[in-house]
Amino acid sequence: MKKSLVALALMGAFAGAHAQSSVTIYGTVDAGVSKTTGTTAQIGKRDNNKLGFRGVEDLGSGLKALFQLEIRYEPDTGTIESTSGANSRPLFQGQSRVGLQGDFGTVRLGRGLTPFQETSTAFEPWSGVPAVAGYQTNLQVAGYTSDPLAPPGTSGNRFSNAVWYNTPVINGFQLNVAVGAKEALGNTVAIVGRGTTLAPQYGVNALPSANPWGASATYTLNQFAAYAAYERNAIETKLWSVGASYKPMPALKLMATYQKQDMDHTVLPNAANHETDAWIIGANYTMGPGKLLLGYGVKTPDRILKTKQASIGYEYNISTRTYIYFDLSNKKTPLPATTATTNDSTVNHYSVGIHHNF
Amino acid sequence: MKKSLVALALMGAFAGAHAQSSVTIYGTVDAGVSKTTGTTAQIGKRDNNKLGFRGVEDLGSGLKALFQLEIRYEPDTGTIESTSGANSRPLFQGQSRVGLQGDFGTVRLGRGLTPFQETSTAFEPWSGVPAVAGYQTNLQVAGYTSDPLAPPGTSGNRFSNAVWYNTPVINGFQLNVAVGAKEALGNTVAIVGRGTTLAPQYGVNALPSANPWGASATYTLNQFAAYAAYERNAIETKLWSVGASYKPMPALKLMATYQKQDMDHTVLPNAANHETDAWIIGANYTMGPGKLLLGYGVKTPDRILKTKQASIGYEYNISTRTYIYFDLSNKKTPLPATTATTNDSTVNHYSVGIHHNF
Amino acid sequence: MKKSLVALALMGAFAGAHAQSSVTIYGTVDAGVSKTTGTTAQIGKRDNNKLGFRGVEDLGSGLKALFQLEIRYEPDTGTIESTSGANSRPLFQGQSRVGLQGDFGTVRLGRGLTPFQETSTAFEPWSGVPAVAGYQTNLQVAGYTSDPLAPPGTSGNRFSNAVWYNTPVINGFQLNVAVGAKEALGNTVAIVGRGTTLAPQYGVNALPSANPWGASATYTLNQFAAYAAYERNAIETKLWSVGASYKPMPALKLMATYQKQDMDHTVLPNAANHETDAWIIGANYTMGPGKLLLGYGVKTPDRILKTKQASIGYEYNISTRTYIYFDLSNKKTPLPATTATTNDSTVNHYSVGIHHNF
Repeated sequence: MKKSLVALALMGAFAGAHAQSSVTIYGTVDAGVSKTTGTTAQIGKRDNNKLGFRGVEDLGSGLKALFQLEIRYEPDTGTIESTSGANSRPLFQGQSRVGLQGDFGTVRLGRGLTPFQETSTAFEPWSGVPAVAGYQTNLQVAGYTSDPLAPPGTSGNRFSNAVWYNTPVINGFQLNVAVGAKEALGNTVAIVGRGTTLAPQYGVNALPSANPWGASATYTLNQFAAYAAYERNAIETKLWSVGASYKPMPALKLMATYQKQDMDHTVLPNAANHETDAWIIGANYTMGPGKLLLGYGVKTPDRILKTKQASIGYEYNISTRTYIYFDLSNKKTPLPATTATTNDSTVNHYSVGIHHNF
Repeated sequence: MKKSLVALALMGAFAGAHAQSSVTIYGTVDAGVSKTTGTTAQIGKRDNNKLGFRGVEDLGSGLKALFQLEIRYEPDTGTIESTSGANSRPLFQGQSRVGLQGDFGTVRLGRGLTPFQETSTAFEPWSGVPAVAGYQTNLQVAGYTSDPLAPPGTSGNRFSNAVWYNTPVINGFQLNVAVGAKEALGNTVAIVGRGTTLAPQYGVNALPSANPWGASATYTLNQFAAYAAYERNAIETKLWSVGASYKPMPALKLMATYQKQDMDHTVLPNAANHETDAWIIGANYTMGPGKLLLGYGVKTPDRILKTKQASIGYEYNISTRTYIYFDLSNKKTPLPATTATTNDSTVNHYSVGIHHNF
Repeated sequence: MKKSLVALALMGAFAGAHAQSSVTIYGTVDAGVSKTTGTTAQIGKRDNNKLGFRGVEDLGSGLKALFQLEIRYEPDTGTIESTSGANSRPLFQGQSRVGLQGDFGTVRLGRGLTPFQETSTAFEPWSGVPAVAGYQTNLQVAGYTSDPLAPPGTSGNRFSNAVWYNTPVINGFQLNVAVGAKEALGNTVAIVGRGTTLAPQYGVNALPSANPWGASATYTLNQFAAYAAYERNAIETKLWSVGASYKPMPALKLMATYQKQDMDHTVLPNAANHETDAWIIGANYTMGPGKLLLGYGVKTPDRILKTKQASIGYEYNISTRTYIYFDLSNKKTPLPATTATTNDSTVNHYSVGIHHNF
């Protein structure tokens, strides 16, 4: 028996050894130099930076087990996203989900993008990357937050503690649904809402007042695609959104979206920002290894000045996994409420960088 | 010389490139829905979730170098375990160890489960997973903590700053020993113990008053296995434990353990909780791809009400790496000391989920 | 269409799947036992511990895209380096960079060692590892910090938010340059400098007063190598350093370095520590699988006692990737300024451990 060293002690530790072949490592490194009106040149990113681990296990009869864990980080400083002590983003900010896939569709549990937030990226001219010149993080979501009861540093476009169900794609049609549990997520800042400072509507580490949920439907037919989405978050803000894209020729994709946010549950009807709507139009034009991105959009909250944004971008593929980019945008945003003047503030932004998938 | 670009600058950075083949990635994703008396349904886990990296280097003559690094995370929120600012668990909470293995056995340095905590899992009906229906995190350890001077959020069943020695298995017998250094681990809460609030027995960032150490011996003979373990932690709480398992037929495993904790060093003899004992009996019965888990146990601290737990579980393997589980448990626990009444509190717990190894 | 399940929803998530072959995992685990005058024996490290991910993509025509992400951790406790809430080191403390390499050299963006800090390690007798017996973290850099405006726990020998350019090696000669952006890094402690406590020269989360930058030139000819380096950090402290190594026979490497730090921007000329110089001499002698390390060095700050250090070390390779080490050092350092006496403090240090690359 002398050969089987530490068999007992390592039994637990080494379980899973046979599974090695199933893990795929993937990711993105995106870093560039940018300049915004009023600040010095900075090293930053245009896309989210990811380091992920995922796998698929074939269970036979068309059934599969899936998992995916995705670290998100900042290449300019080497930190995970938004590091700030207790308010840090999760290590696996990108997603952490496990599930089953079969003829019935896909069921997953854990943390990930909501159906609306994930579906809408395909109809945004910057493909949903959080570039300053892009529209996803502000106009495309009408300023809406999927995760308002999470700590301040956490990203706002995901559900934690949720179950996802995606139907199969049938005749170009797919339905995606996610429902979150009524669990507290450790928000450290109270949401006053319709309450008072002393008795806020949602206190620190508040429970959701309703199960957060969302659904999106997508339809694709030849050159045409469209979606419709609805979502209600943990503080009962509601959003609906529709969008469509069309390719009049293979190299050209035209797209438009509209979204409307209703904050009636936390904002009084006569207060500013009770409702917000936003629309975006955009185009992508492919020229050999290059791609031109164009976009224009307007966000209109109740009783507050509009946000208007015009952007142009260019991506040049130096390989299938690596491209160089240039972005240029002009954005008019309302000044903070504390400012006496009611004028807009205009900000120009330039960036150049490299985007590498691995 | 023009071909060897950045040779000097990258020399350090790229050392180790030849070693790639030696790293194995492994892990677990376990997520499910659970419901406990008095709370809403939640997304949670039943087993610890792991993402690990390990390797073995063959040094010739039967000698091997080993390392293992194991991240632990929560799939429902994407965070590492117990994220709470300065009290966060270590990134490699599972373990971080390096060592040598040969005919003499295995020597490892770093952080990992203590011999008692690791050995006892094989004699617990839920195999040591921290399921609410399982016994490992409370009754199986008689409420004992291996790591009392670590920050509050840190798990209590590991030694940091320790050396491990495991003998080879000889005629079914194996001895495992671990000794910790007397290093402060940054506890942020004082342990009053036999001191006073102003002069606590162990202050903030206190040094151990003795080297923590533990040992376990295991013996396996055909259908029979048994262990005995002893451990003394950094505040000189002592624990001993014995257990055995027997398989009257291949599909059925019966098991029982007993453990006794002595807190004499920090608790006055006439105070509550001076000594604690606990016992558990359990069974695992395999039926084709399914496994039935049964357990009952009682923990009896001095002068405090007992904790009693009865649990039933079922695991259904849909592949060698993936199973679905159902757990049901009933647990009577003493109410917190601040409560006027001396009654027990009874909690029922149900959970269903998926467990995937990769 | 029924076969392409969740095609749309997973489109973003699974991008990059084709790139799997390009990621290399590598790292180091170094753990040992050490004893320093006045403290108990401890489990610790001699080298930095790394878990890294890197890849090279061949773009054709000699052009390559590179990325490298390097986690740094403590194996004795399982944490990332210097965990302390908001002051934690970045997850990818080692480096996080992306870039392009071609006939023109290498351009990278992100966070990494400065040219001086990286180049000088090849001329230090412990090869730049942060061993107590080694010279890199104190004498080799004359006490200089490349990153003074980073949070307290962060390592001081890297630039964040920087661009690197390394020339190709031409006739044994190579030039490396890095320039940092003027971005705030979130320092939580003010640098009083030439200011006052109420109006510190660099406040909390201060911007650099100048772009940090550095350059190093290295030259290699047969048995001879030399470097010269210059660096100016975010608070305009300047450092220059020169060094050389010579191999009179293949088994023996002799080396010497000199460095001078000028803190004129933050320290008054008549104050202590206005200028610091330091020199080190050392030797490495290879004997079969063993290597003997010898070093002696002196650091001399203005108007403060000198630091003198003599060290001897031995590394014994048990494979190409694993060695055992023994270190012994004697270090005289000035007592802290708050101490009444002006005597030096003498500290002896012993360590033994294992170093494993994977």
